[in-house]
Amino acid sequence: MTAILVVGAGAVGALFGSALARAGAEVSVVCRSDYGVVKRDGYDITSPLLGNHRFRPHQVYREVADCETPPDYLMLTVKVLDGVDRAALIRPAVGPQTVIVLIENGIDIEAPIASAFPGNEVLSGLAIVGVGRGEPGKIHHQSVGSLNLGRYPGGASPAAERFAALLTAGGIASKVTDDVVSARWQKAVWNATFNPISIMGGVLDTAVILGTDESRAFVSSAMQEICAVAAAAGHPLHPKLIDQMMVVTREMAAYKTSMALDYENGRPMEIEAILGNTVRAARRHDVATPILDALYALAKMIEAKASR
Amino acid sequence: MTAILVVGAGAVGALFGSALARAGAEVSVVCRSDYGVVKRDGYDITSPLLGNHRFRPHQVYREVADCETPPDYLMLTVKVLDGVDRAALIRPAVGPQTVIVLIENGIDIEAPIASAFPGNEVLSGLAIVGVGRGEPGKIHHQSVGSLNLGRYPGGASPAAERFAALLTAGGIASKVTDDVVSARWQKAVWNATFNPISIMGGVLDTAVILGTDESRAFVSSAMQEICAVAAAAGHPLHPKLIDQMMVVTREMAAYKTSMALDYENGRPMEIEAILGNTVRAARRHDVATPILDALYALAKMIEAKASR
Repeated sequence: MTAILVVGAGAVGALFGSALARAGAEVSVVCRSDYGVVKRDGYDITSPLLGNHRFRPHQVYREVADCETPPDYLMLTVKVLDGVDRAALIRPAVGPQTVIVLIENGIDIEAPIASAFPGNEVLSGLAIVGVGRGEPGKIHHQSVGSLNLGRYPGGASPAAERFAALLTAGGIASKVTDDVVSARWQKAVWNATFNPISIMGGVLDTAVILGTDESRAFVSSAMQEICAVAAAAGHPLHPKLIDQMMVVTREMAAYKTSMALDYENGRPMEIEAILGNTVRAARRHDVATPILDALYALAKMIEAKASR
Repeated sequence: MTAILVVGAGAVGALFGSALARAGAEVSVVCRSDYGVVKRDGYDITSPLLGNHRFRPHQVYREVADCETPPDYLMLTVKVLDGVDRAALIRPAVGPQTVIVLIENGIDIEAPIASAFPGNEVLSGLAIVGVGRGEPGKIHHQSVGSLNLGRYPGGASPAAERFAALLTAGGIASKVTDDVVSARWQKAVWNATFNPISIMGGVLDTAVILGTDESRAFVSSAMQEICAVAAAAGHPLHPKLIDQMMVVTREMAAYKTSMALDYENGRPMEIEAILGNTVRAARRHDVATPILDALYALAKMIEAKASR
């Protein structure tokens, strides 16, 4: 039986963990804030995709160090924030054979983990899922649910195939890519523009952000900067990507980004993972990104104000 | 006796009108929202500079057209907003000899007035004053109070000298410049950066905006773009201007811009006059202004959201 440890079992971790358990894996979780409730009752999950159900993890740990047997897969679903040493967080449970699965937002978020665990395979995953937490132990899955997974920094991976097969069998359609870094850059084209823009002006939704010809031209220019960085980093993206993203986003209902929701709720924002790392990649590859630089400077001001 | 008509007698108009009256001018006002109170009681002004006093205008008009004798000076102190045709507003009271005095924010705000009244002298004024309105008819002058005035588009002006002498005699120190457009560009270096930045993130004050090395570098880069536009428009500014402004602004107490106050109070913002005209001047003179363009696009999104 495949042993999986979910570290940071918030909304995505609990939902994906439940799907993996349903497919037959032995899924344990580390959760701090909900520990008491989850230890006693498991997770109460409402989901249009998996049905409403209760997910009782194999083990519920308060700390990573409480997991004494290294799992086959350690799935990390914490936010990527300054001051959180994710490598140190997971180290107590990582054995020589443990495959580390990062399901997190941002650019270059794999590098610190890969260099901290040079002997371990690192899988990088991009989740598309609308899921949130309610009261302790309650998970509300609203819409969609899929994963794009691949070995970091690239290449084929039987371990990724097995993980994706389990998750798919459990109800979360998952596919494997041999170039997950390109996939991450592709996602950044949307994330690193809409997220920071959405926290300007006390939260802007996608309908406002794309409300006029001028605003669309602006967003498109910002996206072009990210495409230029991705290309310089060796990951050229499809020339029609931006147009497609603009069309899809305009067809969606007015949408608040994850950063906008974090901002509204006074939670830490993943500015560095999503935008800061993009800007730093631009500097490394000598690509001019004046719009991203401006968004980054403004987002940091907003963060500084929010944290006062 | 010099006859002066103040059009848009809000805080600045009432305060400056009171100073002009104190110096012996015959000052009438057009005020819409406070008409009843001002007609009956005049303005109740608290001021550390002029003392607390009551200012009873010579005439109080509800409409510009009610002023049947053209004044020597028509002082316009309304906001410069899209959809407000200032030339049409003042036309009924402008006689062949009337000198038009614009005490308003922004870049290129004189051009529409100058072209609408080619036979009239236009003076352009930059006020430095902290003054606000309270209840109807109540004006609270908080701090400083001075005017920098000049003939538009440039040159010496006896009419400006007389107006400045009156205002100075009334308690508002005023000086005359023969290059008011350069002075306006100089002011724009501060205004067109701090104002739009201040409405990001649900209002940022100057302390947050200048809170880190990175944020100061960003503001400085934005200011450099404005200096480049000013130079291309024939108004090179002093090379140390930006450093001086940064020092002065950091020494001030945390300060909210006029645009931030407008935003907080749900009032229309002078985005076009302050920033849009700057960006359009950049396009005319073929100067790249990526940061200003970004600020402009974001400010317009914020405005669109605020006006929904």
